[in-house]
Amino acid sequence: MIVNGKAYRSIWFDHSGQSIGIIDQTLLPHQLQERSLKTLGQVCEAITSMQVRGAPLIGVTAAYGMALALLHDCSEQNEQLAAESLLATRPTAVNLHWAIKRLRQALKGVTPLKRAERALQEADAICEEDVKTCSAIGDAGLELLKQCWQEKTQAAVSQSPTLNILTHCNAGWLATVDWGTALAPIYKAHNAGIAVHVWVDETRPRNQGAHLTAWELGQHGVPYTVISDNTGGHLMQHGMVDLCIVGSDRTSANGDVCNKIGTYLKALAAMDNGIPFYVALPVSTIDWQIEDGVKGIPIEQRDPAEISYVQGLSDSGEFGRLRITPAGSNAANYAFDVTPARLVKALITEKGIVAASAEGLADLRDQL
Amino acid sequence: MIVNGKAYRSIWFDHSGQSIGIIDQTLLPHQLQERSLKTLGQVCEAITSMQVRGAPLIGVTAAYGMALALLHDCSEQNEQLAAESLLATRPTAVNLHWAIKRLRQALKGVTPLKRAERALQEADAICEEDVKTCSAIGDAGLELLKQCWQEKTQAAVSQSPTLNILTHCNAGWLATVDWGTALAPIYKAHNAGIAVHVWVDETRPRNQGAHLTAWELGQHGVPYTVISDNTGGHLMQHGMVDLCIVGSDRTSANGDVCNKIGTYLKALAAMDNGIPFYVALPVSTIDWQIEDGVKGIPIEQRDPAEISYVQGLSDSGEFGRLRITPAGSNAANYAFDVTPARLVKALITEKGIVAASAEGLADLRDQL
Repeated sequence: MIVNGKAYRSIWFDHSGQSIGIIDQTLLPHQLQERSLKTLGQVCEAITSMQVRGAPLIGVTAAYGMALALLHDCSEQNEQLAAESLLATRPTAVNLHWAIKRLRQALKGVTPLKRAERALQEADAICEEDVKTCSAIGDAGLELLKQCWQEKTQAAVSQSPTLNILTHCNAGWLATVDWGTALAPIYKAHNAGIAVHVWVDETRPRNQGAHLTAWELGQHGVPYTVISDNTGGHLMQHGMVDLCIVGSDRTSANGDVCNKIGTYLKALAAMDNGIPFYVALPVSTIDWQIEDGVKGIPIEQRDPAEISYVQGLSDSGEFGRLRITPAGSNAANYAFDVTPARLVKALITEKGIVAASAEGLADLRDQL
Repeated sequence: MIVNGKAYRSIWFDHSGQSIGIIDQTLLPHQLQERSLKTLGQVCEAITSMQVRGAPLIGVTAAYGMALALLHDCSEQNEQLAAESLLATRPTAVNLHWAIKRLRQALKGVTPLKRAERALQEADAICEEDVKTCSAIGDAGLELLKQCWQEKTQAAVSQSPTLNILTHCNAGWLATVDWGTALAPIYKAHNAGIAVHVWVDETRPRNQGAHLTAWELGQHGVPYTVISDNTGGHLMQHGMVDLCIVGSDRTSANGDVCNKIGTYLKALAAMDNGIPFYVALPVSTIDWQIEDGVKGIPIEQRDPAEISYVQGLSDSGEFGRLRITPAGSNAANYAFDVTPARLVKALITEKGIVAASAEGLADLRDQL
């Protein structure tokens, strides 16, 4: 990704300073500020407060967090403690578990003095693989978008129609290391000269769409329009959406997809209007242990204050929050929902397009 | 309605001061402030800026606005001008047309000197009828809620289950003169000792749920929880919603229902989870001229700034707005959507429960 003419990633490790570099995503789109995380506590806080967020990025951050902890204390006891602290930060994204498990696997049998180095090496590998994975997701998705665009071009009176894509939350490069999952095919299509336009759900309560997706797309030059989360159904009813692409925080073995709260509602609207609903995800978001996502995936509940207050920038350029509910109002804040596989047209993975079903995922697993 | 121990209505005419009294709904829930409208211009501005809103209340306000205009100039030319100005304020709610048409009908053949008096008399009648209509909607809906609650009580292990009702936007007494439409059955059920709890969609972009419905329910003592508009599907999937009730700004002759943007998404989720989705409406919201609501009802587009900015109260108690999108971001603001009749379990009207279908509405029309 390029931001203001500079090549950017959402996370990097400063080997000389022994610290993790991140973009503080709670300040976007109003301010681009890097932060340096030097302790495990800072890493956990960065995940919990959503300075870093997005399932793939949470996984990479956790891997670097493990390495950082081992740089300070390479004991097995500290490894265990660090893993427990990181796993407790957020319950829904499965990449967190996946990355920590993979990193600890790599440490097995490594002599104490080499453990920190090995951990860092593995975290670097997870980070680099994420970039390749997302690029491959982009390539697979690009083929779908090309096909959609060709169909629309053939059907259209105009020879250069625009492909209208709706997305929910942020599954762009800010949710990964680079490229993104749901947005990777969109960036690749835009780069390939396909006229794409993105309907960006604002994605209450944390507004990742209005804050992050809008900012990312704007930086890349992809045309977009921010809409309230209530709007997608109306647009789909009136032929203003050609397809939907979203990301996934955890995918169960039957193809159910757990993603930001509200995803399920858009999938229902897409089905009701005959519009393909795609989910782009790295294989690392698949939880092979869970057979029924609707019943089995734990849903994080966050602070009700995220509902009662909205954060943003004042007309005088200051960060602030405003209360939108009556004083003392009850509020509930479920962060994710699960979209049943029957509503998903296909999964876009780094291994290609996969049917959202137990059979489709079993076939995929055979290839791994 | 009682607010802070005082009997309240959302609108009243001050016959001595020749002015319309309203509650400025743009300041709720943070401040309860009455405003006095003395000119047609102030009335139009109050409707456009949503100081008064809600289809039935817009109708009553427009009727009083006509009366006010005729008090100043009782000519037929001024009557025509006033009607045109009021009709131009908001395009979707059909009550506006209905109320103005009814008022002008009442003026036919009235001598010039009596026109203002007659107009005021008719506006008063429309206002009083709205209270009776909403109370009758409440009575009809109460029977449904009683039945639902009895079924839940019989099925439950606990002898005193809570009836969980989801609503979208504000269709309470603030949207009418008193009682409300969707909330009328809820108030009546609560008054009758049925344990009700309301899931209140915040209803972006104008947050009528978080601002108005939450405030109304709180004043009446009805338990409620504010949720983001994204949340309802998840709650329905997990048995946390027993039924939905919303209002309507315009209902077509086939039973399609035009209501606040996002209503359609909740209706889809209710259908997908076998949860009854009711729409409460006065017969005056039915547009007999439109046979297909999805195709025929005009959808208001409002200022995109309502998407880019959120309004609320700062921690220091000041009203303000915050930008949530990147500077210069595109945004689109469709204010309503249409829920196809096939997703609506039944219409709750002042004439009783009516099937949401061309047949159901034709039967209703025969009774009028």
